[in-house]
Amino acid sequence: MKKKNKKVNAAILIIGNEILSGRTQDKNIAFISNWLNSNCGINVEEVRIIPDVEKKIVENTKTLSKKFSYVFTTGGIGPTHDDITAQSIAKAFKTKYGFHPEAYKILENYYGKKKFNDGRKKMAKMPIKAKLIYNPSSAAPGFMIKNVLSLPGVPSILNSMIENCKRYLVKGLKVHSKTLNIFTVESNISQKLGMIQKKFKKSVDIGSYPFFRLGKIGVSIVLRSTSKSKIKKVYLEIFNFIRLKKIKILKI
Amino acid sequence: MKKKNKKVNAAILIIGNEILSGRTQDKNIAFISNWLNSNCGINVEEVRIIPDVEKKIVENTKTLSKKFSYVFTTGGIGPTHDDITAQSIAKAFKTKYGFHPEAYKILENYYGKKKFNDGRKKMAKMPIKAKLIYNPSSAAPGFMIKNVLSLPGVPSILNSMIENCKRYLVKGLKVHSKTLNIFTVESNISQKLGMIQKKFKKSVDIGSYPFFRLGKIGVSIVLRSTSKSKIKKVYLEIFNFIRLKKIKILKI
Repeated sequence: MKKKNKKVNAAILIIGNEILSGRTQDKNIAFISNWLNSNCGINVEEVRIIPDVEKKIVENTKTLSKKFSYVFTTGGIGPTHDDITAQSIAKAFKTKYGFHPEAYKILENYYGKKKFNDGRKKMAKMPIKAKLIYNPSSAAPGFMIKNVLSLPGVPSILNSMIENCKRYLVKGLKVHSKTLNIFTVESNISQKLGMIQKKFKKSVDIGSYPFFRLGKIGVSIVLRSTSKSKIKKVYLEIFNFIRLKKIKILKI
Repeated sequence: MKKKNKKVNAAILIIGNEILSGRTQDKNIAFISNWLNSNCGINVEEVRIIPDVEKKIVENTKTLSKKFSYVFTTGGIGPTHDDITAQSIAKAFKTKYGFHPEAYKILENYYGKKKFNDGRKKMAKMPIKAKLIYNPSSAAPGFMIKNVLSLPGVPSILNSMIENCKRYLVKGLKVHSKTLNIFTVESNISQKLGMIQKKFKKSVDIGSYPFFRLGKIGVSIVLRSTSKSKIKKVYLEIFNFIRLKKIKILKI
């Protein structure tokens, strides 16, 4: 992993009709976002979910690649006809698409020459100048070209590969967070929270999220910042207000 | 619900730092997409997740509103400082933002005059010309302005309101689907599936999704089309191929 940078951000591009149609519940967004922040100090600032359509993949890859430090794509790098991510990304960057020599070797070794059929060979096709993201669980590698990292859509395989992205990423500042769960409704605390947010506008991001637990309504107040001491300051201010209002705090 | 149209599509715009950061697992995408297809024949073709930042909400609302028949937003219509969806959408459409007379009445009735504090009043602020989306579970209404429908982020509240969107939507053609689960790996069937997909390119969409179940690897083949009879044709062709290859079919 390379040297620390001040602000490093990323976008996630989920490619797959099955997520758009609601057939499959996505699990990769939360996983990638948490991993990037905890391990690399990289903040995910936009996510897009698009269908397996070449034009859309090309368009969105170009747009997001320009706007963010990194783009992580998931899905569409398997052996079937609907797996068109690799060729579309090659098109987006006008770079040659074909058998990647190292990927070809890895897959040929994994399957053995006899069982290395056309479907499996397809998984060695990608932008030929790409860097590989090794896959410890099922061999077929992901790849990185320019600032775009392409991973498979199956969560268990993606999870096993994510550590292998690290070597390609510049580290940013980690965003810390602290949560205060209280039993009240948002409208009871909204004015004061707004005032505190104004005061710490540039350093701490205060989020307020209603929840239902044990049959009661509550609010999670989430503080996020790259500065732990600023979080502590804001936390104390909110904590004192909550105690004064005699609002019950939920201990977890 | 209005008359049937041929092709009606939608985008979903999820507004919320908590989803982007990975703190909260989104549940609204799959719910809205399934509901829209089953009940209205509307196909979700793009999803974006963005932070609670006015500029980004304005920008994305404009873009998606131009590209799709409808845009569904979730999140950011509550009483706290980070709830800025309503004012941002008003800005996107250059329409007046303020107290919506009917929404104000609904909320005043619900809370009672004495308990109708500033936080709660904020929930009556929106584009004043908006149509309301009634909320049977917690009173605070969503709204529709132009082709954008704004719903809250809390899944249980959103779910209770979705039926009230129906009156504002033009119905499209429902996409039917049929799934065949088989115990094999994708690369064993990819060539044949690709050939069948080519043959039915314009009428049926064939998706192929690996799964792990009972310790075995399998593939879900999902057929999607507005024509039930075309799905049946493709299903039979794939079914016969699977039987010929002696691949085990998973009965559900």
